[in-house]
Amino acid sequence: MPHVVISPFDNMSPDTNVITRINGFSTNGITNDYLQWKKVAAAKQMQREKILSNYLAWRVREDIPLEIKNVSSYALHALTDREKGIINQDATGLAEMLRFGHYSALEVTTAYCKVATAAQDLTNCLTEILFEEAFQRAKELDDYFLRTGQTVGPLHGVPVSIKDHILLKGHDTSSGYIEWAFKTKAETDAVAVRILREAGAVFYVKTANPQSLLSLETNNNVWGRTLNPFNRNSTPGGSSGGEGALIAVRGSPFGLGTDIGGSIRVPAVHSGIYGFKASVARLPHAGSHDGMDAIVGVLGPMTHSARDLSLFCKIMLDAKPWLVEAPLLEIPWRQEIADGLTLPSKLSFGIIWDDGVVAPHPPLVQALQLVKSALIAAGHEVIDWIPRNHQQGWDLISQLYLLDAGKEYKETLLAAGEPAVQQTEWILSHAKDKPYSVGEIFQLNLAREKFRADALGHWNETKTRTTTGRAVDGIISPVAPSLAPPHDTTVSWTYTSHWNLLDYPAAVFPMGRYNGSGNSSGSGDVVATPPKLGLAPRNETEAFVHKQWNDDPNQSIGLPVGLQLIGRRHNEEKVLAMLAIVEKALAERK
Amino acid sequence: MPHVVISPFDNMSPDTNVITRINGFSTNGITNDYLQWKKVAAAKQMQREKILSNYLAWRVREDIPLEIKNVSSYALHALTDREKGIINQDATGLAEMLRFGHYSALEVTTAYCKVATAAQDLTNCLTEILFEEAFQRAKELDDYFLRTGQTVGPLHGVPVSIKDHILLKGHDTSSGYIEWAFKTKAETDAVAVRILREAGAVFYVKTANPQSLLSLETNNNVWGRTLNPFNRNSTPGGSSGGEGALIAVRGSPFGLGTDIGGSIRVPAVHSGIYGFKASVARLPHAGSHDGMDAIVGVLGPMTHSARDLSLFCKIMLDAKPWLVEAPLLEIPWRQEIADGLTLPSKLSFGIIWDDGVVAPHPPLVQALQLVKSALIAAGHEVIDWIPRNHQQGWDLISQLYLLDAGKEYKETLLAAGEPAVQQTEWILSHAKDKPYSVGEIFQLNLAREKFRADALGHWNETKTRTTTGRAVDGIISPVAPSLAPPHDTTVSWTYTSHWNLLDYPAAVFPMGRYNGSGNSSGSGDVVATPPKLGLAPRNETEAFVHKQWNDDPNQSIGLPVGLQLIGRRHNEEKVLAMLAIVEKALAERK
Repeated sequence: MPHVVISPFDNMSPDTNVITRINGFSTNGITNDYLQWKKVAAAKQMQREKILSNYLAWRVREDIPLEIKNVSSYALHALTDREKGIINQDATGLAEMLRFGHYSALEVTTAYCKVATAAQDLTNCLTEILFEEAFQRAKELDDYFLRTGQTVGPLHGVPVSIKDHILLKGHDTSSGYIEWAFKTKAETDAVAVRILREAGAVFYVKTANPQSLLSLETNNNVWGRTLNPFNRNSTPGGSSGGEGALIAVRGSPFGLGTDIGGSIRVPAVHSGIYGFKASVARLPHAGSHDGMDAIVGVLGPMTHSARDLSLFCKIMLDAKPWLVEAPLLEIPWRQEIADGLTLPSKLSFGIIWDDGVVAPHPPLVQALQLVKSALIAAGHEVIDWIPRNHQQGWDLISQLYLLDAGKEYKETLLAAGEPAVQQTEWILSHAKDKPYSVGEIFQLNLAREKFRADALGHWNETKTRTTTGRAVDGIISPVAPSLAPPHDTTVSWTYTSHWNLLDYPAAVFPMGRYNGSGNSSGSGDVVATPPKLGLAPRNETEAFVHKQWNDDPNQSIGLPVGLQLIGRRHNEEKVLAMLAIVEKALAERK
Repeated sequence: MPHVVISPFDNMSPDTNVITRINGFSTNGITNDYLQWKKVAAAKQMQREKILSNYLAWRVREDIPLEIKNVSSYALHALTDREKGIINQDATGLAEMLRFGHYSALEVTTAYCKVATAAQDLTNCLTEILFEEAFQRAKELDDYFLRTGQTVGPLHGVPVSIKDHILLKGHDTSSGYIEWAFKTKAETDAVAVRILREAGAVFYVKTANPQSLLSLETNNNVWGRTLNPFNRNSTPGGSSGGEGALIAVRGSPFGLGTDIGGSIRVPAVHSGIYGFKASVARLPHAGSHDGMDAIVGVLGPMTHSARDLSLFCKIMLDAKPWLVEAPLLEIPWRQEIADGLTLPSKLSFGIIWDDGVVAPHPPLVQALQLVKSALIAAGHEVIDWIPRNHQQGWDLISQLYLLDAGKEYKETLLAAGEPAVQQTEWILSHAKDKPYSVGEIFQLNLAREKFRADALGHWNETKTRTTTGRAVDGIISPVAPSLAPPHDTTVSWTYTSHWNLLDYPAAVFPMGRYNGSGNSSGSGDVVATPPKLGLAPRNETEAFVHKQWNDDPNQSIGLPVGLQLIGRRHNEEKVLAMLAIVEKALAERK
């Protein structure tokens, strides 16, 4: 059942039995530790509260009635009209305004700190708060600009929010683990952070991620649960859910997330913003799960526009990060491809109407129909993508995530005596009871390679069904089978983790918010009549997800709708070029 | 002590105690199997002998006196003058001659089959022999050319030899294992083989590789030992040693090898030819060691010229292999870089005089001095490369090779009851007594990533020592600490495996043969006076390798001398462009 969670201290009363459900570890001494971890969490939260208490005028201190689920409109309460103009920019536009001297870095930073403060009160999306450091940095940038007439780089004065587990020099990296709280002050920036810093970015907040990071919601015992600003009963998605919630209410122009199974894309879609998961090793890596080679996560942007995704990639790769981060591919950013200069005039897209595991909720089907008709109207081709092995893909990747039987996760929890949150429990329920052997790992790696080979052939074969003489250029797909689910009810990863397993780039784009009626809202929102979903579910996951819709289709009202566009491996630029085509077609259709 | 091994049946009398020295496996039943594996080997060799007996005129049936160690000159005995003209071409030249109709595919193929037959009698370099299939293919290509005036592709009519473990449709892939003999007929070509076939290549032989493939010599119980044609007492190197020996005597214009620790480069240098190890996933993969992700081998060309290395890469990547082999990087071949069009006019090279583990034998020092002076004379810069952690790199990569404690190797041997050959024993002596755990593997992977990060920084830091404002463009290094060692005495991998661990591309180029005098031979040969090597070796490996020189410097006389040129990861084109510069400088110096 959906929770309503507003207090960050909501997680302070977990079921103490939870801990005993983690396999293979003694529960001795949990009682004492159990008290101890609450103290650590309280200390961490008090630290945050103390900082925010310096900005009382920016806070949302009123009690918003529980029946008001959409709290997004409260986020801008402290802004001047001029500040509203600032936060309505995308990062590209903002950078331009700063470059022209239209805004100062300090006023831009101040505007975002105001919204971020409110966003924290509304959604619990922040972790480390560094406003004073940001103001100082903004002043330095303004001084530099006044003195030289130059910007320090393409992001001069643009605030950037950073997901908690990504290293930001001088700040804690507790990453949703009690055990790491107060112990993980970063001595250096992650490479991506350093590049952004050198490009002129202003860091002002870190944002929430879930315990274990291996979750498509955002909840942990250090900071509590993060809420979806459009419906507090729903998750903003995860694991980059703090980014999602913050950016959704325009508390950040530009955020850094990470994705190993959907962790950029799911919060992007549930929060109604853009997000981009590149192929592994094209962009600097965040540095989590070190040594785990079998499936590797990627770092990427979460933004207000498609062009901001491209801006991020260009800044990263223009810095030649392969000269400082050994695993990265030396493939420079090809702006001419991203700009669409090499695209054929007629593109061919495959649409995933159903991944064969969980058919999507009606608002998503309608979104797919809308994209299809828009693309056809714009002269492109759309064919049905034949879904292939999404369940098998999940069975495989969920093994690859947990080669050590979840040992590292469990040990980190037990070291602090903190319980697993519900979504951690859920993912760890996929772990074997003991680590795989070397021989088994070789077999799993081999299975992964066979899976990838098969998928490549499957894509190539679409050539027989297109009129372009080529295989499809891209795939359009839901990001999840439903809009943002009620808290603690996310059970389906197959629409996103599939592309991590295959290592294909995928960009999420928003299409408005579901208005629950059969009529267009006229504001670009996607609409659908609420039909019942089929009564013969193919598996337990589909049964659960379809029951959510059938029981309460209105739960989805007001929630963001979006899709993802998937390309071939290492074709990041082409994906973003195609995204521009899709958005143009959608705009023309309206 | 050096062996003299001419009969392919030399291995039929191994020390039966060998098998008991393999850890962790029962020796029950070995006696029976021991007889059985000899039968399998005899059957395999009889099959080969039966085919060769059809070409008696091409064979070398005379008993060459044992004191004649250099048998290379016997290889061409059956050739006409016109055929000698053919086999003196490199692949690029040969392809051009075929394209102009100057030679027919059939006469070219015949010439190479003649030399290959002799090479087999002299060095035992062949495994599967498919002359009739090759003649048939050559006739078809000639017919096509006569009919259409066109070639089927850039290698129309060019014979290509294939290392045994690489899949060649319709032929056994025993790969030096008794267990796999007669059981591994390939149903498909390896991707690289298919691309070569489509480019017009004619396949006529497969070539020997050692038992386990994890060896820098070439010896196995199926086919026996392969000899160095310039000194039968020495190894041609390995694991692509059949290619080395065959190409050395011009029995092939172009061969396919593989390299996970030096297996292209060591046989290339010991055989006096060119070889190229690209970064992982740039070229199609051969498909061995599937599922072993920690260190991945690469497939690459072994040739008579630097431009043939480039030709191979261009053919491979123009075929867009990433569309059929999922792990490959979509980085097209950039011919303009390979052609040197983007090179700065002044290059800066680092020279590895000594890797800190085993200082090289004097002929190699002299080769390095020659390259240095030639490059400086040509206006380039040469600095001393400071060797870093080659021993630590070996300690790490030898663990990564054997994550399963060598279980797969040992099981494959024991399945057929065959004993380990000396070099298999040597490498397996590096295995732990039990497989690593998942946690240990994560730690080793992490250690590898740290090693790579450190090495990248080390390269970048050379910027402080160059005058170009850049870090060094490439590194010049020995490929092994000595010229081709006597059989069963190879104990040092650090000059090659280091670059597998770092995944940097490296090209081997020949510099003539050591003539043992202090005077230039006038024929491009590298010369050195034979000084004694230092009497205070830094480790057992160096003690052994230096004793080899001090005991008998004349053992090296007549053996090929060569070096390798190493570039940054994914900079295959630049390495080959720099190789052309190095060769030009050497040519001008003479």
